[in-house]
Amino acid sequence: MEQTASPSPATPREAEKAFYQAFEQADAEAMLAVWDDGADVVCIHPMGQALGGREAVARGWREILASGHRMHFTLIPLQFTEDGDLAVSLVYEHIRVDGESRTRPPILATNVYRRTPGGWRIVAHHASPAVVDLEAARQAPRSLH
Amino acid sequence: MEQTASPSPATPREAEKAFYQAFEQADAEAMLAVWDDGADVVCIHPMGQALGGREAVARGWREILASGHRMHFTLIPLQFTEDGDLAVSLVYEHIRVDGESRTRPPILATNVYRRTPGGWRIVAHHASPAVVDLEAARQAPRSLH
Repeated sequence: MEQTASPSPATPREAEKAFYQAFEQADAEAMLAVWDDGADVVCIHPMGQALGGREAVARGWREILASGHRMHFTLIPLQFTEDGDLAVSLVYEHIRVDGESRTRPPILATNVYRRTPGGWRIVAHHASPAVVDLEAARQAPRSLH
Repeated sequence: MEQTASPSPATPREAEKAFYQAFEQADAEAMLAVWDDGADVVCIHPMGQALGGREAVARGWREILASGHRMHFTLIPLQFTEDGDLAVSLVYEHIRVDGESRTRPPILATNVYRRTPGGWRIVAHHASPAVVDLEAARQAPRSLH
């Protein structure tokens, strides 16, 4: 515990750093600390349904972070917008997993941050595979939307 | 053209209405009118890469809207957050396509709106299938993220 992210991120970028640091360290408590307490939080993991509300979001993270995978994130920023007490960050997540030689397809993530009395917190995380695989991409309603 | 959405949406919800109306009417000009002019716009269609910048976003929409499918959207709101000149809406899109009997898997969308001198505009659209199909879901790095 010698180096932890700030418990009260002063900016949305600090909150984003804390989010991915908790992810890399598979630290569920740190991950939940950076999430807003509000009932309206939403978390979408790749290919999953939307998890709504603090409890469902927490359950999702505990499950994922307990998988034992050690992940390392390289983020490629796509868009960052901030105004008032709200900020949105779109990034490509390139994930390297310890012990895996195969490169994983990148993940696209939209992260929404809100300023609270306790600092900036994440209120929404929407992640999806840029391309799962060619077969899935062929079957997806690509021409539709 | 007897009924068109406002060219200068006064609220993010009006902009969202204009977005989905243009989508349903397969009206590329109306769709592009509701997008921001900024160089930082980002559009992610399901299972696609991120399209960045006005030109790439426009090309993507012209291609999709030219497909000839007539789509009808039912939106289930998941989260709506607004502050200052920024707003974010997360929704489930249930899409019915004329002439199709098979139900399509729902789409999850995060839409980001920004206030401009010309009204509220969309600056980011991130859409992904909630579940493409069971096989794809099994192959996706679900335990990871």
